[in-house]
Amino acid sequence: MQQLASDIAVLKFGGTSVGDLKRLTQAAMRVRRQVDLGRKVIVIVSAMAGETNRLAERARSFGIAFDAREYDAVVASGENVTAGLLALALQGMNVPARSWQGWQVPVHTCSAHGAARIIDIGVENLTARFSDGMKVAVVAGFQGVGDDNRITTLGRGGSDLSAVAFAARFGSNKCFIYTDVDGVYTADPRIVPRARKLDRIAYDEMLELAALGAKVLQARSVELAMQYKVPVHVLSSFSDSSGTLVCEEDQTMELRTISGIAHSRDEAKVTIVSVADRPGIAASIFGALALRNINVDMIIQNVSESGRTDITFSCPVEEVDTAEHALRTIRDDGILNFEALLHDREVCKISVVGIGMRSQSGVAARMFTALADEGINIQVISTSEIKISVLVNRRYLELAVQTLHEKFGLDRVPDCDHQQQPA
Amino acid sequence: MQQLASDIAVLKFGGTSVGDLKRLTQAAMRVRRQVDLGRKVIVIVSAMAGETNRLAERARSFGIAFDAREYDAVVASGENVTAGLLALALQGMNVPARSWQGWQVPVHTCSAHGAARIIDIGVENLTARFSDGMKVAVVAGFQGVGDDNRITTLGRGGSDLSAVAFAARFGSNKCFIYTDVDGVYTADPRIVPRARKLDRIAYDEMLELAALGAKVLQARSVELAMQYKVPVHVLSSFSDSSGTLVCEEDQTMELRTISGIAHSRDEAKVTIVSVADRPGIAASIFGALALRNINVDMIIQNVSESGRTDITFSCPVEEVDTAEHALRTIRDDGILNFEALLHDREVCKISVVGIGMRSQSGVAARMFTALADEGINIQVISTSEIKISVLVNRRYLELAVQTLHEKFGLDRVPDCDHQQQPA
Repeated sequence: MQQLASDIAVLKFGGTSVGDLKRLTQAAMRVRRQVDLGRKVIVIVSAMAGETNRLAERARSFGIAFDAREYDAVVASGENVTAGLLALALQGMNVPARSWQGWQVPVHTCSAHGAARIIDIGVENLTARFSDGMKVAVVAGFQGVGDDNRITTLGRGGSDLSAVAFAARFGSNKCFIYTDVDGVYTADPRIVPRARKLDRIAYDEMLELAALGAKVLQARSVELAMQYKVPVHVLSSFSDSSGTLVCEEDQTMELRTISGIAHSRDEAKVTIVSVADRPGIAASIFGALALRNINVDMIIQNVSESGRTDITFSCPVEEVDTAEHALRTIRDDGILNFEALLHDREVCKISVVGIGMRSQSGVAARMFTALADEGINIQVISTSEIKISVLVNRRYLELAVQTLHEKFGLDRVPDCDHQQQPA
Repeated sequence: MQQLASDIAVLKFGGTSVGDLKRLTQAAMRVRRQVDLGRKVIVIVSAMAGETNRLAERARSFGIAFDAREYDAVVASGENVTAGLLALALQGMNVPARSWQGWQVPVHTCSAHGAARIIDIGVENLTARFSDGMKVAVVAGFQGVGDDNRITTLGRGGSDLSAVAFAARFGSNKCFIYTDVDGVYTADPRIVPRARKLDRIAYDEMLELAALGAKVLQARSVELAMQYKVPVHVLSSFSDSSGTLVCEEDQTMELRTISGIAHSRDEAKVTIVSVADRPGIAASIFGALALRNINVDMIIQNVSESGRTDITFSCPVEEVDTAEHALRTIRDDGILNFEALLHDREVCKISVVGIGMRSQSGVAARMFTALADEGINIQVISTSEIKISVLVNRRYLELAVQTLHEKFGLDRVPDCDHQQQPA
């Protein structure tokens, strides 16, 4: 995707931020403030809170014959409505604004309906209209148009992706994501009352946190922001606090060992007992699971003895039945041989995330010791360069998060954070 | 508009006919019956009952800065949702169906947002997909796309217009309008319990009835049907009765003197007292009213004496204030001089309609006598070739309709109707 350079601000408002007419008006006021600063503005809007679910439920009620293209055409209408309404609200404040649906921009995507990827965003139409005096383009988020001129959607949280993609394409370094929380926290404040808001966080930390279930920003949007170096400001629609800036890492961030504790509640663990330990077996297992769209997360294979081994993987708890059905099918087809399938639907995932981990050893040991001191048994471990995740029994979720938050000193404000203010 | 010849059936379902998921399923079953007859089907759908009002209310809540383009983008989404849902319902019955939004077909319109006229309907996309095996195209009614690629709507009742336009363009002689009444009646059955359903009615009779407030078919759709000679079957979604066929007149219709009694409840009468009786005055009055979109209906100018005259016109009761404001403005601007404005907001319009009137004299006399016998004072009279309308005080509405229905023998089944069955 080519990038322009511009003084365009991109603002994104999530569903609760445009949830009723009063909130739409408040969103319009935030947009007007950007216009008053002399900026042109692209606003990405979600459907009003509850609309997408309402539409999705209706579409799903026709059951077996589910056609993702029709589903997309139905659910994308929620964003179209918000876009038109916000344009009207802005006009009511004498701000020259108009709405744009995905196909009007156009936002070209692939044809993977329900989870389409943005291929390119046409800049000519918006640029021409900005030259003609339009101050604000209100764009329906979450949607695009495929090669066959049919409406596509980008998957849940796709409006974040729309916002970052527009910022990247229009060369904007002002991408403001307005949501119902006031930033990214060191842990979920509902579990850890002393959790602190982070002023800044690096893309890859945010990526780990987003993927791990911190619902502030959609993971794909963080990837895209990292790829195009778009600084993303996460802000609250309901306060004027400074939010969190998601950006490239800097020295101050590296002084922190750990930036946050993430958790994911509804995990399950499946173990395939005694499979042959030879090349191609893992490929046939995880190929079959991928075909059924099982979101496999952690994978462990124990050291093999006697030519057979156990393979364990984790996935969302609601996908266990489909996963086991897929595995039994390839056994019945003679592709895979195993003794038994075991599952545990009562696990959760706890992760510590921080780019400081790269330069500091012993983080894993500190994490495991802290959990052991509380008598929490670790079932599965998985690590990346800046993250350590463990599966534990779900009843320890709160205890584990609170313990780690305290042990890694996340409730104390580090000196460097005092000196950092978001741009 | 060019016409193809084809064995395509066009079915239109109004808002109550797709008002919930159960009714959508019933509509899908009607569509499938057409497919089972070997026909390709174009289905035109309205928004689910209540949706358009809900969306329109939200759009209007932003008040003064009303932009018809944004309004159209918002309200058109209701039809898009129904189209997707009905396509899913059909797929669930193993009928190959897909949804089409106005811009996807495309339905080209002029850019008069809120009341756009259809310029042409592209046939290539639908034709290609029919060749590929699609059996049903579910088209979002009421909408199109303007030259500037923005979504337009055709005005209230516009889905009827969409249906007739598709039937005309695709050369279909099977245009079925499914609605919540089972046909066209000799009068409103809520006022005249003995009103009878008509098996057939001529285009121009239907046009007078539609324009006069019989809400079965939108007036513009009848004009278009007449222009392209599309026979239109009005049918109930909720029964299997034979409905009413709107078609070219035939001998049997001409045997009837009067086909129906129409009424319009919320009329008002405005009189401009003592205006100069010279060329250009009427033009300046009705020009000023047209500028404000006042729907002027009947106009009377009395014979002038002493160079000054009174001009009376009727319009919908909710437009009286705007009309008077427009007239006072042109008086203040020195364009028009008058002594006073009088209005009466308590009138209604009663009309007798029938193509038989052309060959039978004395209809007006019979009408006026019937009303006089009941002591009903006629305030304004207006006639066309097949219609006589009068304004009377609103409290006589029911009495006038019932009296005329009886006096013109509409509650008796004429012999010719017995022999006529709809095709």
